[in-house]
Amino acid sequence: MSDNSFGRLLRVTTFGESHGPAIGCVLDGCPPGLALAAEDFAHDLARRATGRTRHTSQRREADAVEILSGVHEGRTTGTPLALLIRNTDQRSRDYAAIGEQFRPAHADYTYWQKYGIRDPRGGGRSSARETTMRVAAGVVAKKWLAERHGVRVRGWLSQLGEVRAVVDAGIDFDAVESNPFFWPVAAQVPELEAYMDALRKSGDSVGAEVSVVADGVPPGWGEPVYGKLDAELAAALMSINAVKGVAIGDGFDVVAQRGTAHRDEITADGFLSNHAGGILGGISSGQQVRASAAFKPTSSLRLPGRGLDVHGNAVEVVTTGRHDPCVGIRATPIVEAMTALVLMDQALRHRAQCGDVGTVAPRVPPAA
Amino acid sequence: MSDNSFGRLLRVTTFGESHGPAIGCVLDGCPPGLALAAEDFAHDLARRATGRTRHTSQRREADAVEILSGVHEGRTTGTPLALLIRNTDQRSRDYAAIGEQFRPAHADYTYWQKYGIRDPRGGGRSSARETTMRVAAGVVAKKWLAERHGVRVRGWLSQLGEVRAVVDAGIDFDAVESNPFFWPVAAQVPELEAYMDALRKSGDSVGAEVSVVADGVPPGWGEPVYGKLDAELAAALMSINAVKGVAIGDGFDVVAQRGTAHRDEITADGFLSNHAGGILGGISSGQQVRASAAFKPTSSLRLPGRGLDVHGNAVEVVTTGRHDPCVGIRATPIVEAMTALVLMDQALRHRAQCGDVGTVAPRVPPAA
Amino acid sequence: MSDNSFGRLLRVTTFGESHGPAIGCVLDGCPPGLALAAEDFAHDLARRATGRTRHTSQRREADAVEILSGVHEGRTTGTPLALLIRNTDQRSRDYAAIGEQFRPAHADYTYWQKYGIRDPRGGGRSSARETTMRVAAGVVAKKWLAERHGVRVRGWLSQLGEVRAVVDAGIDFDAVESNPFFWPVAAQVPELEAYMDALRKSGDSVGAEVSVVADGVPPGWGEPVYGKLDAELAAALMSINAVKGVAIGDGFDVVAQRGTAHRDEITADGFLSNHAGGILGGISSGQQVRASAAFKPTSSLRLPGRGLDVHGNAVEVVTTGRHDPCVGIRATPIVEAMTALVLMDQALRHRAQCGDVGTVAPRVPPAA
Amino acid sequence: MSDNSFGRLLRVTTFGESHGPAIGCVLDGCPPGLALAAEDFAHDLARRATGRTRHTSQRREADAVEILSGVHEGRTTGTPLALLIRNTDQRSRDYAAIGEQFRPAHADYTYWQKYGIRDPRGGGRSSARETTMRVAAGVVAKKWLAERHGVRVRGWLSQLGEVRAVVDAGIDFDAVESNPFFWPVAAQVPELEAYMDALRKSGDSVGAEVSVVADGVPPGWGEPVYGKLDAELAAALMSINAVKGVAIGDGFDVVAQRGTAHRDEITADGFLSNHAGGILGGISSGQQVRASAAFKPTSSLRLPGRGLDVHGNAVEVVTTGRHDPCVGIRATPIVEAMTALVLMDQALRHRAQCGDVGTVAPRVPPAA
Repeated sequence: MSDNSFGRLLRVTTFGESHGPAIGCVLDGCPPGLALAAEDFAHDLARRATGRTRHTSQRREADAVEILSGVHEGRTTGTPLALLIRNTDQRSRDYAAIGEQFRPAHADYTYWQKYGIRDPRGGGRSSARETTMRVAAGVVAKKWLAERHGVRVRGWLSQLGEVRAVVDAGIDFDAVESNPFFWPVAAQVPELEAYMDALRKSGDSVGAEVSVVADGVPPGWGEPVYGKLDAELAAALMSINAVKGVAIGDGFDVVAQRGTAHRDEITADGFLSNHAGGILGGISSGQQVRASAAFKPTSSLRLPGRGLDVHGNAVEVVTTGRHDPCVGIRATPIVEAMTALVLMDQALRHRAQCGDVGTVAPRVPPAA
Repeated sequence: MSDNSFGRLLRVTTFGESHGPAIGCVLDGCPPGLALAAEDFAHDLARRATGRTRHTSQRREADAVEILSGVHEGRTTGTPLALLIRNTDQRSRDYAAIGEQFRPAHADYTYWQKYGIRDPRGGGRSSARETTMRVAAGVVAKKWLAERHGVRVRGWLSQLGEVRAVVDAGIDFDAVESNPFFWPVAAQVPELEAYMDALRKSGDSVGAEVSVVADGVPPGWGEPVYGKLDAELAAALMSINAVKGVAIGDGFDVVAQRGTAHRDEITADGFLSNHAGGILGGISSGQQVRASAAFKPTSSLRLPGRGLDVHGNAVEVVTTGRHDPCVGIRATPIVEAMTALVLMDQALRHRAQCGDVGTVAPRVPPAA
Repeated sequence: MSDNSFGRLLRVTTFGESHGPAIGCVLDGCPPGLALAAEDFAHDLARRATGRTRHTSQRREADAVEILSGVHEGRTTGTPLALLIRNTDQRSRDYAAIGEQFRPAHADYTYWQKYGIRDPRGGGRSSARETTMRVAAGVVAKKWLAERHGVRVRGWLSQLGEVRAVVDAGIDFDAVESNPFFWPVAAQVPELEAYMDALRKSGDSVGAEVSVVADGVPPGWGEPVYGKLDAELAAALMSINAVKGVAIGDGFDVVAQRGTAHRDEITADGFLSNHAGGILGGISSGQQVRASAAFKPTSSLRLPGRGLDVHGNAVEVVTTGRHDPCVGIRATPIVEAMTALVLMDQALRHRAQCGDVGTVAPRVPPAA
Repeated sequence: MSDNSFGRLLRVTTFGESHGPAIGCVLDGCPPGLALAAEDFAHDLARRATGRTRHTSQRREADAVEILSGVHEGRTTGTPLALLIRNTDQRSRDYAAIGEQFRPAHADYTYWQKYGIRDPRGGGRSSARETTMRVAAGVVAKKWLAERHGVRVRGWLSQLGEVRAVVDAGIDFDAVESNPFFWPVAAQVPELEAYMDALRKSGDSVGAEVSVVADGVPPGWGEPVYGKLDAELAAALMSINAVKGVAIGDGFDVVAQRGTAHRDEITADGFLSNHAGGILGGISSGQQVRASAAFKPTSSLRLPGRGLDVHGNAVEVVTTGRHDPCVGIRATPIVEAMTALVLMDQALRHRAQCGDVGTVAPRVPPAA
């Protein structure tokens, strides 16, 4: 077991190294009959891609998806979907110098300790390059959720370093798609541009928080008590490179809340609030599902740091490859993808056990 | 699938309702030869139990564990361990009134929507009573980890409502075991007593944060890229009743950190810090593994709240059963148990794939 | 991992040793709303039980099932069903003598080699006592299959030693239930009685073949290419104690068949034959599903055999406990149970992926 | 879930349709450090390939394996191995005529019933083309088993139609590799050549039996009670296209055996026989593991058969594509591969739970 698979009934298996010949995934369990073409992947892959703005890594990959199986005459057949993307812009020479070094705060050291061998080119398997296939798989999940259930999964960058998005009036998703940060407040974008320019110049990196909501999720998805919807969302988001924290609904803010303030009261007209993030007892309540993830600052810096080499010698590590000064910036499509994959998996699991029995009266509208 | 199982190679399956005849679990995959007796469970079950102080629910359960299988002459045999605890202090009449009501912020409504039927007595399956068996299973994992690998898993209450534990000088685990709150600072306990007395009198509830550390974890545990140690910890902790957030290492604090500050530099004498919480790329680094979980305030309140009944009518819900004003108080052993179960599972998975190959030089000491 | 679980969406986990305090199982994933009571288990458990005729082991167990969880007011709730049976007629003294001996052809030696420890009392975990819980779990599956899909699973003893059931005119299921052998031909029963009396007197044992059919299985159940209906049936039947061979449809007879003879032709009036046993490409065809299993002769004999003890010394092994001279005789309900569990699991898996899409025209009637 | 994955700790996921752009697999869980190159796959893929003799299908595929991931500098790294083979000799026009027809005894009808859609070109996913990737994955398992444990897995054709291999003197594996039938008796090969020529001329097909042995398997592999070594072998072999029966050791011959004849007695010098096929209680005994599988005759015949079309009309089906008159002839490498994959998976599972504890005295030599 090495667990490069994710999901129970909709099972994603990814493979590939950053500088290997290709990356890819197998998506098993997708229902038959879904319209699907290679073009469907372009939009989200472009959203995740590097090299589109000066604020991300300058590696440029075409990210052209080839569908190797599972589609016949434009529709899924129920057999496994295999998706392949050839790597084209590897520059392994960038990493030759550090092939024997363990960068501080990197997976270099832990892969070495675990396996006794590692592919150091571009971070090998531990590279964020792998998340490309998460996004690709997520495209299928988003499409199915939208067509079959009217569910829509959308994310945004809710914090960049110390700068928090001011979204009291709700999320402006048009704004999110109009700037390279997935930022929901157009007025703050110039500030962010300046922030990132200064950061890049300094050679340092910074953390970020990405948030996601799913609208239209019906009540009843989620499997108590270990396959809870929130538990699986937590695993899904924490499995993304650089994530160190996951919140559902109000997240860590609940610690200082009173029960009377936290509890989302219910009336015949609907829920009166949504502190729970649309999940109660691990099962969706019919409200908006809401989560967020904290991304740590990139550790690949040109500012020297103390590390070790494979011989145990102290070394000064300087990372000169093409890296993101803030990995969170490109993470929004990844967070969306993982959320969509979890939701679709739970939808199938719910259908397996409960069929349509869950759609009992009364059904409460979500909070306005 | 209903997913009452947890873990891949060390698989815990729990069963039982709050007011049913019994709760229990099956623990499959435990290596043979571990010394184990019914008495081993008493300590941690008592730590988790209700009815021991005025600050928790007054339900009193003997929580006597019967080992039904898997042990011969005092040692595990490699066959499944079945553990059983009879329920003895159910008071289902407390719940009769609300059998047709959906309490706000409770799993009542979502179970109903999912299954079209539910056992309302004491919350049925959604009750925190289920966590008793997590603690029982965790006892086995703690014991194996300690004996086989010298790993020690310990938790504490790091925040109660607005009150944060002041632990700059490190955690005083003797203090943790000396007060009903698992609080690591003896000097703050009187303050907490007063806080909880006032809270209980008010009829309201409050949230809390529980933290946990595992010392002695060797480098190499954790399975990239979906079965990462932190991803599985996140799922494990988020699956505990009332948890809404999970953090590894610095958690959400990483959002505003710079890379130069966050990265844990490595020297031949050891790591210089531990912002990462002992996990890099999803694999343990040999440093202390560190996590925390945010618990929401109990929603079962005697203060009236707006809810619905099964007929869709608005009702005023008053919950008069025996409830914890702060579920986080008793959660420390549960958090420890889930952490230990994840670690033991990962230890077995690592052994399966890598045998002893992972123990390569150089091995870096944890941060002092 | 020790794999005491079976099934993907309907997951059975059994526990318990032959002479431990109890045996039991947890059945997870059963849909909510199924009527279920402890009495439902009595009939099939009695069919499997020892001590009812002189032709089986004389151990007498009440086999009273206690439902510990998952049922509320007579219906399943969707939470795990835990079933418990206390052992009452253990006679471990029978086994004291052989606690250090490895009986030839027994799991004694292999459990010892695998685990380095074993519970020798009554065969411990390797005893056929475990199959009691398979039968109990199978009761739930049979009930759900019958009520939800009109599927009926029935078995019989098709061969006892050299004696083959003569069933050219079809299976007489009334006969099957009217004799202690589950034999489908009433006229042959006296012969079998004499056969078994002579065998018992000789101290030897003999093998048997059990067959099973499922009527009413709709087309579409089974998951290519590794979770095929026949592949999972094969695993299910081979996992029963003493089984050494599994056949689907014509089984090993296909080796010498011509394609023109084997292929089940299809007309608008239905299939013209059923050599395939109702499964094509791993998916049910809508015909009768048909399988059989070969049971080896019991190895626990009072006739001395050469074995070894734990010190490596050659010993003469004589087994004096209460054993079946033909384990196949009582195996019919076990084979039915495993078949029903596989079918129900596949039904849920099919519903998960395909919903009702599979019910497309044309649907072909099964062979008359 | 659609279950195109196989194995627990060594997990194979295959994808691809017969006439799609490519077939491939992901092998997850392979230990790091195994030497592996694309050339390693050539030998077994050639053994399985069509178009090498007149006795098999005339489709000619290069079957060149590309390793897409998981190998660095000639050694496995512990990350997933992705293997890809491009299809080059598809002739979908051969199938255009039957795109709307359901061939008798084929998966055509059941895929249609299950999914409501199917890829009819060359049988799509149900084609034996998929087994190419089983063989490729099996190469890795064979290599690891040989290097790590000295285990050797070898198969042969034990029966072709009515012709049984006469192997009383043991299997001549040199002979097996010297004829296109994997036949262990050189003297019988001319008879088989004539048999197949006549069969091909007749337009009919015939069944076959393939046998396999694994030498060097240590005692202790296999997980009771549902993940037994024999249960998983049964599933593995039954999942191969066209298999209708699986036997372990003496298989169905045990039905008529006496216990005194069947039981493999043990002496300090070793086992005296091996009727059990090296497995007791689901765990390997240290003897030779022995299994066989029955393959049905191909259903794709040019001799007309009665079938149906998608509109429910009766049609006369004539299959003119390139098909094997006996699929069992090429099945030997597939049976070997599945056996090796099961054994390696069980080896890893055993290591996970038991470490080296299983290697206790006394260890009994296999039967001479």
